[in-house]
Amino acid sequence: MAYIQIPEEEQLPGIRGLMAFRPETAKHLNELAEALLRKTDNDLSKGDRELIATYVSYLNDCLFCQSIHGAAAQCYLEDDGTLINQVKQHYDNAPISDKMKSLLSIAASVQKGGKFVMPEQIEMARNHEATDSEIHDTVLIAAAFCMFNRYVDGLGTWASKDPESYIPRGKRIVEEGYAAYDPMKSLVK
Amino acid sequence: MAYIQIPEEEQLPGIRGLMAFRPETAKHLNELAEALLRKTDNDLSKGDRELIATYVSYLNDCLFCQSIHGAAAQCYLEDDGTLINQVKQHYDNAPISDKMKSLLSIAASVQKGGKFVMPEQIEMARNHEATDSEIHDTVLIAAAFCMFNRYVDGLGTWASKDPESYIPRGKRIVEEGYAAYDPMKSLVK
Repeated sequence: MAYIQIPEEEQLPGIRGLMAFRPETAKHLNELAEALLRKTDNDLSKGDRELIATYVSYLNDCLFCQSIHGAAAQCYLEDDGTLINQVKQHYDNAPISDKMKSLLSIAASVQKGGKFVMPEQIEMARNHEATDSEIHDTVLIAAAFCMFNRYVDGLGTWASKDPESYIPRGKRIVEEGYAAYDPMKSLVK
Repeated sequence: MAYIQIPEEEQLPGIRGLMAFRPETAKHLNELAEALLRKTDNDLSKGDRELIATYVSYLNDCLFCQSIHGAAAQCYLEDDGTLINQVKQHYDNAPISDKMKSLLSIAASVQKGGKFVMPEQIEMARNHEATDSEIHDTVLIAAAFCMFNRYVDGLGTWASKDPESYIPRGKRIVEEGYAAYDPMKSLVK
């Protein structure tokens, strides 16, 4: 049980229950997620963005966020979970571009703290043709998941341990996005 | 100089330059700050909220955020900087309520990571009459500043070392809030 009293808690795990508790902030959190993870005006695809979100959530040991965004990444990238696990275990050995590897390295530093990002990491990303806009988005996605993960775990919400249970939600994210999400309406079949 | 090319960088330190670089995400970040720091439907005052933001930014060693939100807290709480410094150094000895002390303890745990928040800390806050809504807002403010701080420092933005230089901006936050903020317009005198 979460630390605060959440409506329909059993049906609303992780951040979904918190969003039902506080719609005033949920709206802005969902709009931020939509802008960061779905609107792509550079070469970072929606799948790449969800991969960064999943990796940072994994580093923060947030079961709910790494599962739900991992499911979204799987859908976008047409992965059966193999790639996501490779990235989590050792992204340097995963079949992703050198640019994505350099951006994941920056994201991992952001997870530790802003000052852990070194000029050499930025240079490496540029050498692999990352643009300012892609570097910016990587840092802000990683930073935002340091918020989402702390929000979800800091209030002690529950999350399913069954990876399969997240797949339908991942599909809905791919189809509908974040901005239109209403936790209470999501309960209606 | 920041890691990415920021318009009018000398006049737009910290997050202000990043917001000028990326207005699409700036809008949602400012609306989130407005909802978290300015709209109070519980007993946490605007000054209390800025104090939590300042303390977390101090723990994250983010000069820009702790200075600007410290300036806003000073304005709200009619403090000359003494109280803010007491809270930073050792909030347990500061002249604030036991409820605020228990909430700052929760915020400090969130800064380390969501799972560092212990049920005993929540119980302590409740014993000092903190409501679910106040506990929620404390955790989300602390989590949000783990994002803002990483965003500002992860992209290597600059910040003034002169505390006095932040006071006018603190006053403007108190007067105008966050939602209406436009970094480019702020350059026009």
